[in-house]
Amino acid sequence: MDYEAHFQAALDGLKERGNYRVFAELQRHKGQYPRATRHTDTGTQEVTVWCSNDYLGMGQHPAVIEAMHDELDRSGAGAGGTRNISGTMHVHRQLEIELADLHGKEDALLFTSGYVSNWAALGTLAAKLPNCVVLSDALNHASMIEGIRHSRAECLKFRHNDVEDLDRLLSSVEPGRPKLVAFESVYSMDGDIAPIKDIIEVAEKHGAMTYIDEVHAVGMYGPRGGGVAEREGLMDRLTVIEGTLGKAFGVVGGYIAGSRAMCDFVRSFASGFIFTTALPPAIAAGALASVRHLKASPFERKRQQERVAKVRSALRAMGIPQIENPSHIIPVMVGDAKKAKMISDWLMENHGIYVQPINYPTVPVGTERLRITPGPVHSDDDIDRLVKALSDIWGQCALHRIEAAA
Amino acid sequence: MDYEAHFQAALDGLKERGNYRVFAELQRHKGQYPRATRHTDTGTQEVTVWCSNDYLGMGQHPAVIEAMHDELDRSGAGAGGTRNISGTMHVHRQLEIELADLHGKEDALLFTSGYVSNWAALGTLAAKLPNCVVLSDALNHASMIEGIRHSRAECLKFRHNDVEDLDRLLSSVEPGRPKLVAFESVYSMDGDIAPIKDIIEVAEKHGAMTYIDEVHAVGMYGPRGGGVAEREGLMDRLTVIEGTLGKAFGVVGGYIAGSRAMCDFVRSFASGFIFTTALPPAIAAGALASVRHLKASPFERKRQQERVAKVRSALRAMGIPQIENPSHIIPVMVGDAKKAKMISDWLMENHGIYVQPINYPTVPVGTERLRITPGPVHSDDDIDRLVKALSDIWGQCALHRIEAAA
Ligand SMILES: Cc1ncc(COP(=O)(O)O)c(C=O)c1O
Ligand SMILES: Cc1ncc(COP(=O)(O)O)c(C=O)c1O
Repeated sequence: MDYEAHFQAALDGLKERGNYRVFAELQRHKGQYPRATRHTDTGTQEVTVWCSNDYLGMGQHPAVIEAMHDELDRSGAGAGGTRNISGTMHVHRQLEIELADLHGKEDALLFTSGYVSNWAALGTLAAKLPNCVVLSDALNHASMIEGIRHSRAECLKFRHNDVEDLDRLLSSVEPGRPKLVAFESVYSMDGDIAPIKDIIEVAEKHGAMTYIDEVHAVGMYGPRGGGVAEREGLMDRLTVIEGTLGKAFGVVGGYIAGSRAMCDFVRSFASGFIFTTALPPAIAAGALASVRHLKASPFERKRQQERVAKVRSALRAMGIPQIENPSHIIPVMVGDAKKAKMISDWLMENHGIYVQPINYPTVPVGTERLRITPGPVHSDDDIDRLVKALSDIWGQCALHRIEAAA
Repeated sequence: MDYEAHFQAALDGLKERGNYRVFAELQRHKGQYPRATRHTDTGTQEVTVWCSNDYLGMGQHPAVIEAMHDELDRSGAGAGGTRNISGTMHVHRQLEIELADLHGKEDALLFTSGYVSNWAALGTLAAKLPNCVVLSDALNHASMIEGIRHSRAECLKFRHNDVEDLDRLLSSVEPGRPKLVAFESVYSMDGDIAPIKDIIEVAEKHGAMTYIDEVHAVGMYGPRGGGVAEREGLMDRLTVIEGTLGKAFGVVGGYIAGSRAMCDFVRSFASGFIFTTALPPAIAAGALASVRHLKASPFERKRQQERVAKVRSALRAMGIPQIENPSHIIPVMVGDAKKAKMISDWLMENHGIYVQPINYPTVPVGTERLRITPGPVHSDDDIDRLVKALSDIWGQCALHRIEAAA
């Protein structure tokens, strides 16, 4: 078999369908974000980033940067080992205790990423509870799906955010069997929010554990940034709360929070936790500073919400179609992979506005979109320029508009 | 089902078998490593670390630390997105180009860890090559096993380092089928090294791709630290070379290197690459500085080899049983989980010497050991104290000795 030819043919196929991904190569500038320098084959260009998941700009917060500098000077670069073999740093435990506190849980467990936390925790819980069945929301993230798949436990998909469907499926499972309901709070591509309370109630009725991914909510919702479940006073009724340190917290890493025994169980049995080098101490220190800051400061959350509302109403006024939702994520719908890429390229080339097109497999074919994430760092002027540019290209390409709202 | 009781019972089982893992909680000290402060429930203790995978002490190298400080001040903390959605930093590409050069390959691809690179790359290659069969060394690392398992491709295990068995198995596969031979160079628990050339030759004879994990070799072997395959002049004959940035390079992260089309293929299809926040720019910058330094400087490698030889001969003189091997890893065999933990505890309590006991599932039951990793940072005095302490406890516990060598 000619392996190279096979690889090349697969890549050519992606290119034909408009699904080949070209990464924008950026140099962020601390203190000037959302400004960044884009590197291309022919030179550089100054751009404004409108699609980052550093939702609150914590990646450049002085408290975070300072904590990282300090820890780097104290401990050095890497952890030097897996958590079990010389890699557990004091600051890892401090961060785990801080995260447990954030979610009102007995303990927390760090992973190298949110992806790995979902994959390893779901993979372990579902595999090690004998004969477990997983109830999985139809729109769960790839990392959850891979974890469930990895466990080889039976998996029943319930219709997205559909509590009745969940109830019906749970009723079909023998009562004594271990059951795990896995879902997200904020779904990152449509920006809709799960009916957490209803899901918990159905799960409790059937004696099922609950596992919530709050990756797109931690730091941003709830009085201390504990997520949507904190805002709704539901954290204590969830078995596992999973989050990331790489989005609103602005650094990198992932975690789960829950009972001491549950965390210890995953710690003891999850391959993806055990057999990998621990996060560098400076990373843990930066995340710790970020979590602590956002626990006490509502400023970034309030300003984000205000900025999001402003972009939404400006888009509405121009008739640019967006998915209306109760979160901070603004999906502007295009519905075609090549068009989405073309608009994105045009915004970059002509206006230095960077919004990555979102195509399959991240979203279903036909729902291609631009996903805009306004944050406290975006100025009024940034917003004006974004909306004006979008309106121009919508006009030029005769794209579908909606009735302009008042 | 009472989930908490199930978790607790499983943990109790581990404790009974002596396999419950207690992490040593350390504070490393930049510039003083291998010295660290251990935090316990009752206070702190100064210890000397003898089991780190920061093999060359690069985690505290001034060039690495400085590069991280600089990049932190330039870019801020996190990358702020997945590689596709605003998370590709200029320094990620610089590092990928540097790693491609290190291994003499067209391109390289970064992952959040070595674990994820194995899992994602093997999982993708084996799944996406139609009807692929994987030939996997019997002692491959958990991350490789999980990747292969994830692909759901047929997997044939060959006896550890046994080229004839590999040949026999490859002969049994239909000639036209895609085949992938996956193995490591340095096996981290026994410290033995694969017969890379023979494996390549058998693979070439059968038209199979080769995938080598050089996680415990990059930085340490070969004139530029390209690994055992560099030392043996074999890099160009391997399809995929996988490595970590978290061990000899002293930071965190993982990668693969190979042809442009292969890297682009994995980049385009691997869930574990696509759906996760990219490494922070400061991490990439630190790793870049480390790779560049070790490419040019043989000093750390030479000093490590000399230190390893010194520890080995001192242990031999005392009759402490070690696995003889051609690498930098010194496994001191105990053969019992509880005894290994007891010796480790005794060394820590009485001598401030930290060597983590290695138990199941990291090694098979009955082969429990202390795994000692001497590095350029260990002084003559450190070595004397280690060997003397081991000899004492060997005497006290009437442990098996071997005939003392001259
Ligand atoms: C819902 C969800 N869960 C988990 C992850 C993975 O988190 P991380 O980026 O920290 O790996 C992501 C995105 O990356 C996500 O969107
Ligand atoms: C052989 C081997 N491959 C891969 C890994 C994973 O690398 P990382 O620690 O960078 O995740 C390890 C150890 O951690 C290993 O021993």
